[in-house]
Amino acid sequence: MKKTAVACSNLALIKYWGLQDENLRLPVNDSLSVNLDNLRTTTTVDFSSVYTVDQVEIDGQKASGRPKMRIIQHLERIRSLKGVKTRARIVSKNNFPVGTGLSSSASGFAAFTLAGITSMELQLEEKVMTSISRLASGSSCRSIPAGFVQWHKGKNHHTSFAESVFPADYWDIVDLVAVVSNRKKTVATSLAMTSADTSPFFRERLILLPEKLKMIKESIRNRDFEQFGNLVEAEAFELHAIMMTGKPSYIFLYPETIQLMTKVRSWRKSGLEVYFSLNTGHNLHLLSREVDQSKVYQLLRKEGIKDIIINRPGPATRLTDRHLF
Amino acid sequence: MKKTAVACSNLALIKYWGLQDENLRLPVNDSLSVNLDNLRTTTTVDFSSVYTVDQVEIDGQKASGRPKMRIIQHLERIRSLKGVKTRARIVSKNNFPVGTGLSSSASGFAAFTLAGITSMELQLEEKVMTSISRLASGSSCRSIPAGFVQWHKGKNHHTSFAESVFPADYWDIVDLVAVVSNRKKTVATSLAMTSADTSPFFRERLILLPEKLKMIKESIRNRDFEQFGNLVEAEAFELHAIMMTGKPSYIFLYPETIQLMTKVRSWRKSGLEVYFSLNTGHNLHLLSREVDQSKVYQLLRKEGIKDIIINRPGPATRLTDRHLF
Repeated sequence: MKKTAVACSNLALIKYWGLQDENLRLPVNDSLSVNLDNLRTTTTVDFSSVYTVDQVEIDGQKASGRPKMRIIQHLERIRSLKGVKTRARIVSKNNFPVGTGLSSSASGFAAFTLAGITSMELQLEEKVMTSISRLASGSSCRSIPAGFVQWHKGKNHHTSFAESVFPADYWDIVDLVAVVSNRKKTVATSLAMTSADTSPFFRERLILLPEKLKMIKESIRNRDFEQFGNLVEAEAFELHAIMMTGKPSYIFLYPETIQLMTKVRSWRKSGLEVYFSLNTGHNLHLLSREVDQSKVYQLLRKEGIKDIIINRPGPATRLTDRHLF
Repeated sequence: MKKTAVACSNLALIKYWGLQDENLRLPVNDSLSVNLDNLRTTTTVDFSSVYTVDQVEIDGQKASGRPKMRIIQHLERIRSLKGVKTRARIVSKNNFPVGTGLSSSASGFAAFTLAGITSMELQLEEKVMTSISRLASGSSCRSIPAGFVQWHKGKNHHTSFAESVFPADYWDIVDLVAVVSNRKKTVATSLAMTSADTSPFFRERLILLPEKLKMIKESIRNRDFEQFGNLVEAEAFELHAIMMTGKPSYIFLYPETIQLMTKVRSWRKSGLEVYFSLNTGHNLHLLSREVDQSKVYQLLRKEGIKDIIINRPGPATRLTDRHLF
């Protein structure tokens, strides 16, 4: 039965970095994210006996190579839940550039998981669904629940799941994504992550993270934007510090990224409440309050940034009737 | 008696970052550097009863503010060694841009210390001289001995000193300084250093440093350039990781710095043995073997870098008869 789901990408406020179990994709630490309502993947899945092979299309192109392989593996997981061999057709569309550090695999696998499971006529709790999605792409589990989401690292498949900790409308923050470059990353996040524990600072990070997670949750609970922004910005640098000091060492920052980070700090010095975050890529997330949104937008335009995506905390992954085929 | 000394600036291979005692300028860790023979300060000091006040001139300008205060304090130290109050005239010249992370205070206070002590007609061992220079500017103690120099952190004034561990001609490495920008730093190194221990990674750094120091010395002893370059590059990122993750967080990298770091790594991938290092600033040090020097130079020119300073391991701080007045 043909089913379609829409999922938001998410921005990690506490990052997912390093695995305790590669096969089960169990992370070494809890992470916390916020869904981004304007970075979306829509995916239609149709499990049906009319197909003799699995067909996969992403953004108008027939999938191939590693991306296709990951999708087929996920189809196998969903089939094995029901113990059938039915083939499927999958068509997926992103409304934002992929491979530039905007986490299209998070929204992609979240939408795929919900559409696939529903197409298979299975009914699963959200918590179970996040665990299944996690197996395909770790951070995708955080795109399934709504708003601000915590991913519990867990100790096995069932205890490693994501859940909403604050709803999307809890806080009027805005994330402006400044697309400083559309160039694709030369190193995949999943590859860079395998060397997380080669950084001399990795162990210390793990020791201090639980306290940091507690503080960020507290800043959201109290809607304390200054505390929130400072913690989020520090966490972004912590991730890049781990990547730069690992073996091999990775530089994901672009010259344009550094330029803009420095600008953001100068704007803040002038009294504008704006902070930045980064994923494993070069495009910068600028976090501000709704009241300052247009000011931040105009400053970005003045810096020559043409491609700006405005996000508010986003909803859960949900079904829609607007099928892609 | 008028005396003139010439000192090299130095590049820290293991960085000096963080103080155990601010007044005595005792660092929290041992550091290791190499003198740079083409980044030089020449300083003439004349203690004489003809002067009624101390006169200080740097690069053709009368010194004022904080730089002058640090110099007067150092004059007081030298006077107190002999228990006199004789005033002095000091004239100092740098052959490179100051305030851009090329450590002019290292070469400056090293030359000043030797010229001042000699002008005062004192005879001191090199080891003692490094400790006195350290009081004025920590890293200046490393510019006094020749070649590759270790600064022992020590526990008090006398045990915190620098000494040569390999002579300048021990190894044919070349340091090409790429001056990506002449803009002056907005934050002084000494200020940024006071918040070293606010980084979540600082403690771990201190635990792992002794092993790293041992390995870098081993790589110099064996003239193992690959091991040497990898360790030096990792150490540069470690310093900047500490600065970026501190409170406040500092970004010393410029867009041009990131651009060039990425280039250096791509050149290395193509088989050229070149590594980078950074001090607390944006200008990049490119380390290579003598045999590759002209290749690295040409690649830098092709990148549009106009200002390139070529250094070999430099000599100790020494006296000269070519006085500046």
